[in-house]
Amino acid sequence: MAGTREQAIFEAGIKLGALYHQFVGTPVSPQTASSLETAIRESISLQPFVRDVRISIDRSQMEENVFGYAELKGTMLTADVVTRVESSCCHARLERKGDYPLMEIIRCYEEPGHPDH
Amino acid sequence: MAGTREQAIFEAGIKLGALYHQFVGTPVSPQTASSLETAIRESISLQPFVRDVRISIDRSQMEENVFGYAELKGTMLTADVVTRVESSCCHARLERKGDYPLMEIIRCYEEPGHPDH
Amino acid sequence: MAGTREQAIFEAGIKLGALYHQFVGTPVSPQTASSLETAIRESISLQPFVRDVRISIDRSQMEENVFGYAELKGTMLTADVVTRVESSCCHARLERKGDYPLMEIIRCYEEPGHPDH
Amino acid sequence: MAGTREQAIFEAGIKLGALYHQFVGTPVSPQTASSLETAIRESISLQPFVRDVRISIDRSQMEENVFGYAELKGTMLTADVVTRVESSCCHARLERKGDYPLMEIIRCYEEPGHPDH
Repeated sequence: MAGTREQAIFEAGIKLGALYHQFVGTPVSPQTASSLETAIRESISLQPFVRDVRISIDRSQMEENVFGYAELKGTMLTADVVTRVESSCCHARLERKGDYPLMEIIRCYEEPGHPDH
Repeated sequence: MAGTREQAIFEAGIKLGALYHQFVGTPVSPQTASSLETAIRESISLQPFVRDVRISIDRSQMEENVFGYAELKGTMLTADVVTRVESSCCHARLERKGDYPLMEIIRCYEEPGHPDH
Repeated sequence: MAGTREQAIFEAGIKLGALYHQFVGTPVSPQTASSLETAIRESISLQPFVRDVRISIDRSQMEENVFGYAELKGTMLTADVVTRVESSCCHARLERKGDYPLMEIIRCYEEPGHPDH
Repeated sequence: MAGTREQAIFEAGIKLGALYHQFVGTPVSPQTASSLETAIRESISLQPFVRDVRISIDRSQMEENVFGYAELKGTMLTADVVTRVESSCCHARLERKGDYPLMEIIRCYEEPGHPDH
């Protein structure tokens, strides 16, 4: 059986895969990036075992097409997700590495006390 | 060749199909519905020939699952989109009809003067 | 009220917007492009008023990332959709124009006889 | 630092989150479910560290709407994904539990020898 540490890691992976494939392709511009960041953060925060989410969309990659907007690409997204299963936490990140949107585990740690989710 | 009236109709269809399939499946709750409405409206407003967008997500359909949230379903969405191609405008709507998320043309009209997009 | 010709145009727009935003972001390679084309064609063919769908994904744009695959971008897609509302048909297309995935009405025509959908 | 076992778990979570949010909302019927299963399996198989994917869509949940088709819901999907990082493997599953599409770790194990991905 998987322990709480492993479950926290698994849940963090789910959240990064989910947000990536739900929102990639959304029309976006520097003027609308903020509302999209908020919507992504709030929607992923609803999912089970999520303790914290931070989303940042890189405005500098938004080369305008002929109609004056861009679409959200995976490499525009920086997402930090912290999951918690009982007292086990996992902090994972989606971040551009060169041309690839890399997802990786940043840190796993124990946090005593009651989880807030 | 299609005239401007027909192009406005075509563009309105594109926008409704796009927003539906981009956002259905997003985790949502009554607390986060507002930020999702804003993100949908702002993203679709970026697309060509869009003059106005109004989005409303029906909170009453958000039956919570075992983890306390729902996912956006097509029947939760009411979306009004107005497109404009030169002086031809088309107002189209996505709205629940029974169990089906129906998309339909509400009205086509001419609007003299300069388009704001 | 919109006539059947306008409804066929509207439905064609819906289908192009839908397929674009449903499938953009899907992992794809030259080896899997064929199954993705089939799945897109069959799924869109289910939608109301669709008479014909043809999908082609441009393998030459699939630059491999560091892990050896690509993601479906809008500019990779050529999609021809024919809708029919009573005897009115609309043929519309999604096709790359430069760096933009352009959607346009190709032809509207009347086709006597019974629709097959 | 995360070990290979934990990385395999993380990758399995990513794949399940990704396939869920990429494909939910796709029009589907008993006649087209097979091509959609194939497209999902082939696309997810391209992603890094994937050793095996099995996808099954529950035809019995496809209640037809007024136009004769359904849309893919999370509860229709059973997905088994096996990831491998060096010699560490993780088998995870998405499967309906009541009304919820549950994702869980089935088994982690070591497999000596060269990975085939």
